Amino acid sequence: MEYQEILFTQDQAVGCLTLNNPSKINALSRRMIREITHVLTEISTDETIKVLIIKAAGNHFCAGHYLAEMVDSGVKEYRTIFDQCTRMMMMLHEIPQPVIAQVQGIATAAGCQLAAWCDLVIAADNARFSTPGVKIGLFCTTPMVAITRAIGRKAAMEMLLTGREFPASEAKDLGLVNRVVSLEALDGTTSELAHGIAEASGFALSIGKQGFYAQADMTDDQAFHYAKQTIVMNNCSDDAQNGITAFLEKTTPKWTNR
Amino acid sequence: MEYQEILFTQDQAVGCLTLNNPSKINALSRRMIREITHVLTEISTDETIKVLIIKAAGNHFCAGHYLAEMVDSGVKEYRTIFDQCTRMMMMLHEIPQPVIAQVQGIATAAGCQLAAWCDLVIAADNARFSTPGVKIGLFCTTPMVAITRAIGRKAAMEMLLTGREFPASEAKDLGLVNRVVSLEALDGTTSELAHGIAEASGFALSIGKQGFYAQADMTDDQAFHYAKQTIVMNNCSDDAQNGITAFLEKTTPKWTNR
Amino acid sequence: MEYQEILFTQDQAVGCLTLNNPSKINALSRRMIREITHVLTEISTDETIKVLIIKAAGNHFCAGHYLAEMVDSGVKEYRTIFDQCTRMMMMLHEIPQPVIAQVQGIATAAGCQLAAWCDLVIAADNARFSTPGVKIGLFCTTPMVAITRAIGRKAAMEMLLTGREFPASEAKDLGLVNRVVSLEALDGTTSELAHGIAEASGFALSIGKQGFYAQADMTDDQAFHYAKQTIVMNNCSDDAQNGITAFLEKTTPKWTNR
Repeated sequence: MEYQEILFTQDQAVGCLTLNNPSKINALSRRMIREITHVLTEISTDETIKVLIIKAAGNHFCAGHYLAEMVDSGVKEYRTIFDQCTRMMMMLHEIPQPVIAQVQGIATAAGCQLAAWCDLVIAADNARFSTPGVKIGLFCTTPMVAITRAIGRKAAMEMLLTGREFPASEAKDLGLVNRVVSLEALDGTTSELAHGIAEASGFALSIGKQGFYAQADMTDDQAFHYAKQTIVMNNCSDDAQNGITAFLEKTTPKWTNR
Repeated sequence: MEYQEILFTQDQAVGCLTLNNPSKINALSRRMIREITHVLTEISTDETIKVLIIKAAGNHFCAGHYLAEMVDSGVKEYRTIFDQCTRMMMMLHEIPQPVIAQVQGIATAAGCQLAAWCDLVIAADNARFSTPGVKIGLFCTTPMVAITRAIGRKAAMEMLLTGREFPASEAKDLGLVNRVVSLEALDGTTSELAHGIAEASGFALSIGKQGFYAQADMTDDQAFHYAKQTIVMNNCSDDAQNGITAFLEKTTPKWTNR
Repeated sequence: MEYQEILFTQDQAVGCLTLNNPSKINALSRRMIREITHVLTEISTDETIKVLIIKAAGNHFCAGHYLAEMVDSGVKEYRTIFDQCTRMMMMLHEIPQPVIAQVQGIATAAGCQLAAWCDLVIAADNARFSTPGVKIGLFCTTPMVAITRAIGRKAAMEMLLTGREFPASEAKDLGLVNRVVSLEALDGTTSELAHGIAEASGFALSIGKQGFYAQADMTDDQAFHYAKQTIVMNNCSDDAQNGITAFLEKTTPKWTNR
């Protein structure tokens, strides 16, 4: 597939997907959703990639859905848009690689959802997060799923009911963002974080990334039963045996990814 | 129904319920619970009201249940009190309108629960939140449900096990409160927030308010499926079509509430 | 059972379990897990103990599992370790007494899990929390269950994917810790908190402690139904009747623990 609205590059074990339609504030058009989904599908089976960064060209991260596609059309078309967008979001949690959102400028509506649904979020200090659908009669119900799972109920309700912009510092206080840095430091900080994570065993990372969401919705007891079996399986792996031995012998482990 | 312990007024699209028994620190007597429930039932079908404020007369928000009704009586009477109080709380989430708690002074036990269970909370800087039932042998189990869904487990446990007062600023840090303002600014801030929210389509607000709690207890996947269908339905509505068109044409949308 | 790796003492209504193998940074060996489990089993039926403190001898709280037991062995042995450790963790929530973790120095991997799974956490300002399993090829899947239920998803993911140490102050901001004090004040602060909680009715405390986790995984509606029945039962108890009467008559309640 030839990408028109995104770019994809790879730097060692780190993949980088760039939303690349800045003249439309990187709106999630049907085309862009299809292209992102294609990347996620490809890397889901690519063991050379251990971490994925999602960043954006231009001054802003993403303005949300492409509104011109959402007027004067029919229920079938709208359902297709949200069906494919939701499928793309779910893949972000299903792929074995951790995903880091790198956010500058605005992250609005489904753009805010995209950032909030990534595993980690690094924001420039000029980043603003908002879910302003309520102002155009289209409540941000799909972004709500991501927002309410990232921050507390009161703050989530305020974002959704008022539609106001939450600056990066406030988003950090609420738990929506891991780190806020200057715009100049944004690329470097995200890259360093990604490469640091990529030093780990890809097998261990995939157990952690997928396991995180597998247990998130379970009851405490179910989650412990799941976690117990998973870590026993992990403990039997070559990478864990090599890693523990290296730790005890104060050497550097070698990963075989199994 | 003639109200003896509350007041109800309406200012344009904003309803205002005032707990009005300050000599008893607005204790949630059986009478007051019945009156609040009556208001909630009435406004649940009143499309002229888009937002509800719950405030309190006097120096304090609410001292919790009326303890004189909770000694020297029988299991049937106690169950009636908690059954009716719980029904009132559940209605706060079921009605289509967002509800804002406006809190000054103490919000204690079921009074703390009432504030914590509203969608948004604006607090005066003299507000204090506590669940001190543990000190009188009656653990705040019903308030616990609201507290644990608003803030983190560790802080919730501390509130419940110690019964100490959490001042407004600490409650803000924990996520229990959206904004802390001076006592003088309390009325104005809440009113401005309510009227700001009320500028939105009532149809969109009701989708958001009710949808928030509908999806809160779902797994991630269930929530996305729910959200997808809901936003497609919302997208087909007159208000969304008008709102998106107005946004694209840079005009002001008109809501028909459908 | 004679304890070799822990100590257990009792001061009035407060039990104190000390991890006592500082030369191994209090690693959770199979022996230590068995000893902790024995204490929890014993106190679970001991009405003279109302609150439990878990502290550690030496400079650090706990380094996690004893790694020497986790190399060059078989799946059955690994499963036994995690099965017994998980059982110990689950008992922390099942016993009727609130449990306070008192943490200095490092709390790593399963040691971080142990602290995070206690009801309350008091930390010295030199405390550091981390889940660095990812660095040795053994993702901290079991600690993840505790971490994700104590703090937000983004911060939890960062702890788990990077393995970096989160200092006490950051852990406090994230909600993992209730209070941070100087190392000198650590013992006194925890003791004062424990004895303060122990002034309450043991019956009420047990309803609260166990009820907290009983309702945590329920939907909102289920939780309210559970809470309603529980508080009615509690209200009928001698301790609640005595406590409410004492409050209304401004006297000091006497607890009969029923």
